Amino acid sequence: MTIKSTIQVVENILSANDQIAIQNRTFLDQNGIFSLNIMASPGSGKTSFILQTIKWSSEFCKIGVVEGDTAAVTIDADKVSAAGIPATQINTGGDCHLDAMMLKQGFRALPLESIDLLLVENVGNLVCPAAFQLGTHKNVLIASIPEGDDKPYKYPAMYKAVDVLIINKTDLSPYVDFNMEYFLTGVQMLNPDLVHFPVSCKTGEGFTGWIDWLRSQVCK
Amino acid sequence: MTIKSTIQVVENILSANDQIAIQNRTFLDQNGIFSLNIMASPGSGKTSFILQTIKWSSEFCKIGVVEGDTAAVTIDADKVSAAGIPATQINTGGDCHLDAMMLKQGFRALPLESIDLLLVENVGNLVCPAAFQLGTHKNVLIASIPEGDDKPYKYPAMYKAVDVLIINKTDLSPYVDFNMEYFLTGVQMLNPDLVHFPVSCKTGEGFTGWIDWLRSQVCK
Repeated sequence: MTIKSTIQVVENILSANDQIAIQNRTFLDQNGIFSLNIMASPGSGKTSFILQTIKWSSEFCKIGVVEGDTAAVTIDADKVSAAGIPATQINTGGDCHLDAMMLKQGFRALPLESIDLLLVENVGNLVCPAAFQLGTHKNVLIASIPEGDDKPYKYPAMYKAVDVLIINKTDLSPYVDFNMEYFLTGVQMLNPDLVHFPVSCKTGEGFTGWIDWLRSQVCK
Repeated sequence: MTIKSTIQVVENILSANDQIAIQNRTFLDQNGIFSLNIMASPGSGKTSFILQTIKWSSEFCKIGVVEGDTAAVTIDADKVSAAGIPATQINTGGDCHLDAMMLKQGFRALPLESIDLLLVENVGNLVCPAAFQLGTHKNVLIASIPEGDDKPYKYPAMYKAVDVLIINKTDLSPYVDFNMEYFLTGVQMLNPDLVHFPVSCKTGEGFTGWIDWLRSQVCK
């Protein structure tokens, strides 16, 4: 026997997500919280980026973190908690991205009344998360030098979907072949207004520029 | 107005994919072709791995390559063609993985009568491709040192789904924090029989072991 079920077509599913994303944005605005959806390939340094950002910005804002993972592990949330920052973990149950409903459930577990800045670490994936708005104020993409300079050309949807680009692991530049001009030409073609900051989350190099931008957004 | 459409539930969709995967396998077996589905995060070195494998194995087998990408770019296929190897490109149209039907359409564009080994480069993604069998003989995962040692813990479905693990970019070991023991403990928990080869696709270091394994499979 063939089992069938009736479901909404894709346009409506995305629209349902967008409805909840709008609710999330309204809720965050009402609570005076600026928020970032941080996306990247696995291993590009999302958690290290969050930890460095905490170190550099705790003077001017109070941070909360939502960590998305495909499995029931708290490796990243534990690192953030160890830095004295409230963190909550979303287990997607194998799903390849966060969606607005997951974030809605996730961020309400945080002490929102004492947070100015919410950092959301999405699942490590350079394809799927780009299609799901969460309701955060800005989308941030972390690229990393050892990933290679051809990624904008090969994953254009992600590079089109973001507002800020962090180019991480500049400390590895002497040891890998990465043509920054070729990389940025690809970025420029897809997203001409994309703000970008080359940084090393390991050493903190380049964080001044990123933190200035962040401060201008949080302290509006 | 709400538009609805009737579709099969997920079990049936996967089963349809598996049916075509079985057809692919039968076709490959009938043509005496051994095949690998190569999966990894973006930028872990799948194409470099294929290029080094071509260099090391062209003495004992004839290779064909299928390149999967989310966009209509032929960067990887061009590199393989430049090495004198027949290559075909599958554009998934934004989709986050290859499936059996895409491979079926892709490999028939190759001169199969003169191929012993088919290398399929999946879309760079550490989540979704693990759920879709293509009909290839073995699933290969390429991890890379700069991605970090916690990936088995965070992306368990992928580490469970593969038969061979390549640990690439060993040339960067001196410059990044990567605890091999912690990494392999995670791998062992998920997939105790997983064969693994640490290599550098940049220098060729470690390829002897991998090529011995490959030769034993192709020349059975």
